[in-house]
Amino acid sequence: MDSPFPKASTLYFKAMNHGDWIKKNFGKLSRSLGFRYLPEGEIEKRIQRVRRGMRRHGIEALLVVQKMDFYYLSGTTQDGLLFLALEGAPLLLVKRELERAKLESPLKHVIPFKSIRELPVLIHHHGGGLPHNLGLEFDLLPVKDYFRFQELFPGVSLLDASVVFREARQIKSPFEIVLMRRAGEIGKKVYEEAANLLKEGMSEIEWGGLLEAIAKRHGHEGLLRVRSLNYEAYTWHILSGPCGGIVSQSDSPMGGLGLSPAFPVGASMRKMKAHEPILVDFGTCFHGYQADQTRMFSIGKMKKKFIDAYQACIEIHDAALDEVRPGAEGEAIFIKTLRLAKKLGYADHYLGPPGLQTRFIGHGIGLELNELPFIAQGHSYPLEEGMTFAIEPKIVFPGEGAVGIENTVVVTKRGYDLLTPVERDIFQI
Amino acid sequence: MDSPFPKASTLYFKAMNHGDWIKKNFGKLSRSLGFRYLPEGEIEKRIQRVRRGMRRHGIEALLVVQKMDFYYLSGTTQDGLLFLALEGAPLLLVKRELERAKLESPLKHVIPFKSIRELPVLIHHHGGGLPHNLGLEFDLLPVKDYFRFQELFPGVSLLDASVVFREARQIKSPFEIVLMRRAGEIGKKVYEEAANLLKEGMSEIEWGGLLEAIAKRHGHEGLLRVRSLNYEAYTWHILSGPCGGIVSQSDSPMGGLGLSPAFPVGASMRKMKAHEPILVDFGTCFHGYQADQTRMFSIGKMKKKFIDAYQACIEIHDAALDEVRPGAEGEAIFIKTLRLAKKLGYADHYLGPPGLQTRFIGHGIGLELNELPFIAQGHSYPLEEGMTFAIEPKIVFPGEGAVGIENTVVVTKRGYDLLTPVERDIFQI
Repeated sequence: MDSPFPKASTLYFKAMNHGDWIKKNFGKLSRSLGFRYLPEGEIEKRIQRVRRGMRRHGIEALLVVQKMDFYYLSGTTQDGLLFLALEGAPLLLVKRELERAKLESPLKHVIPFKSIRELPVLIHHHGGGLPHNLGLEFDLLPVKDYFRFQELFPGVSLLDASVVFREARQIKSPFEIVLMRRAGEIGKKVYEEAANLLKEGMSEIEWGGLLEAIAKRHGHEGLLRVRSLNYEAYTWHILSGPCGGIVSQSDSPMGGLGLSPAFPVGASMRKMKAHEPILVDFGTCFHGYQADQTRMFSIGKMKKKFIDAYQACIEIHDAALDEVRPGAEGEAIFIKTLRLAKKLGYADHYLGPPGLQTRFIGHGIGLELNELPFIAQGHSYPLEEGMTFAIEPKIVFPGEGAVGIENTVVVTKRGYDLLTPVERDIFQI
Repeated sequence: MDSPFPKASTLYFKAMNHGDWIKKNFGKLSRSLGFRYLPEGEIEKRIQRVRRGMRRHGIEALLVVQKMDFYYLSGTTQDGLLFLALEGAPLLLVKRELERAKLESPLKHVIPFKSIRELPVLIHHHGGGLPHNLGLEFDLLPVKDYFRFQELFPGVSLLDASVVFREARQIKSPFEIVLMRRAGEIGKKVYEEAANLLKEGMSEIEWGGLLEAIAKRHGHEGLLRVRSLNYEAYTWHILSGPCGGIVSQSDSPMGGLGLSPAFPVGASMRKMKAHEPILVDFGTCFHGYQADQTRMFSIGKMKKKFIDAYQACIEIHDAALDEVRPGAEGEAIFIKTLRLAKKLGYADHYLGPPGLQTRFIGHGIGLELNELPFIAQGHSYPLEEGMTFAIEPKIVFPGEGAVGIENTVVVTKRGYDLLTPVERDIFQI
């Protein structure tokens, strides 16, 4: 095309402007505004952990495409790819924007690329050859990209490496726990301020919008991430009265009404009323790391039925956490809570309305909302130190409402540590 | 597992509770709170349009997996799949929640399923056999699911049907335009209230959180959707002073600082100052349909350099829209704006900083932010009546700031109609 843009060659000096400005100012500006960057030692440990998984699963090299896996191993979410072999330095390939990626990532080999057509040559040049096999995230990588990689790497077997990432990322480092604690502290501030804003007759979504505004003011990154093609996460999961009894699209005890058939979960335009249970399941996110928490609110006193059910949730929550320590199995904890719920008289309403009850009470959490481990039916592997999950007993009465409590914890040497230090009492205004 | 849950058989009566409540109350409640459902006639037209595309591309049947394609053809976003052959009724398969999907979708054949293992039998039974080929969304479908479908449908060729959806969805019906106009009206309210909340020394993200709270109060569905594995959309794209000059991960003229290396675009913790340009690029969403708009704000008067550049953006915006009508080509409009930007003296700063300039001035918009058509280099197909896109000339000065205007329009018989009726003057407080 006959472009009226200046030719690239004449742009050389000017093209440096953005990069020069970034090099000179970006680090200082961003740190002064609270950015924390991945330390070199941290990334080395992560790479070692991922390489152990590669060896276990017979994978010689990885091409990391998915944003959170890429962030985990590079420290940046600029548009790019990461090549990581069992030996040699990782190669960070950046499309946009190069100088920022260089500042954000502690990796040493950072090079620009424009099209994935260049990958075979760049990787060959970097590693002195191509690997025999290449691991990709089959759980999310689009089919189209897979075929493209087949064309580009004709002699290389493409293997599924999803499990390598899921296993490596399930154990959090102290650096990651600090970020998750910060997310939990943001949550605490939201719940503390929330009661002052709640008013009878206010819609769920109006209040939800204000809660998210509080969270953002304190550094919450409004997008919660889920490892899935179709499953989305909403911060504004605020369910009042009968909305708490509505199940919707996700494998969750309740979904709420939502705003439309296109957004059928979470807060709705329904006006909140006095004496009904108002469940606030609110995820917060700091530097990509999430904390998940649920508490109950009411305008005036809640009906005794719901107060009792909330007490049962607390009892189940505490009984579940009593079992948490390295070596305990998620499924056993889940079954224990089922028995306790039955004993307390909630067998038909625990974790969903009758017939629609879910089969999990806890989900791993970190950069994504559905990480390993699950405290659920079918998950009988042992918990390990450094695993983080949200535990969320909920009780649901169709047509009436739902109650529940949720906290995010990290497994420690002897038990667990709470990452979401919000008051447990019902927030009654 | 020895589950203490009641056996499914004994649950039959109780299991009806949720479904019964939904059947009796959900339609009335949701409509009273503003839900609009897809009319039967609308869905029939969409199915006809999609079937024309299937014939054009030699596809005998589709299995619709991706959420927005599924919503487009079913009217619901409950967890499920849609089977659509060239002949016969579409089959809506629902995992969760069945009764809600039945109320939300005008489709007649709605059946439950638990595992995709059941698909071959269910489809065979519905259609009296399996198709010879099956179209899937290769642009997004994960590799893992593709292999699973290969196992489940051994004699059936799996084909890429992405283009069928992209082409069908690029022409909006009057029903869809009504929803996009509602999104645009929400945007107008946000911009009108925004100036009252802006204060010197407030952080970009604090203000951004408040703007999103306004939008939500008016029905905005905070999650903006993009057809992509890694690209995410943020509502709170608020860039003050030097933050406007920062390019980040996306193919966009500027990205901003963001909140962390994990969220490196949009509003940051930077405190806004007097006299600097404050660019507000804010997407709004109603019933899944988006409108995208950009306007400028300032605290006290902006420096003349930025006022002049904003005037240039308006001139480019108007010149581009002057060309819009059925038959016009996106690339030609894009090139016209390049020439005008050069004439006005902004060749080096138009659509990004020197060397990092993007090659598009408009993007199709609807259920997703990156639909067809593009007003961009390489997009030389003719515009058609009913296409909708956002047009966004922007001018970027690294280290100083950015200005721009953006509106969403629909192509009409003779030209275009504006869907984002926000005041164009700089909002100066």
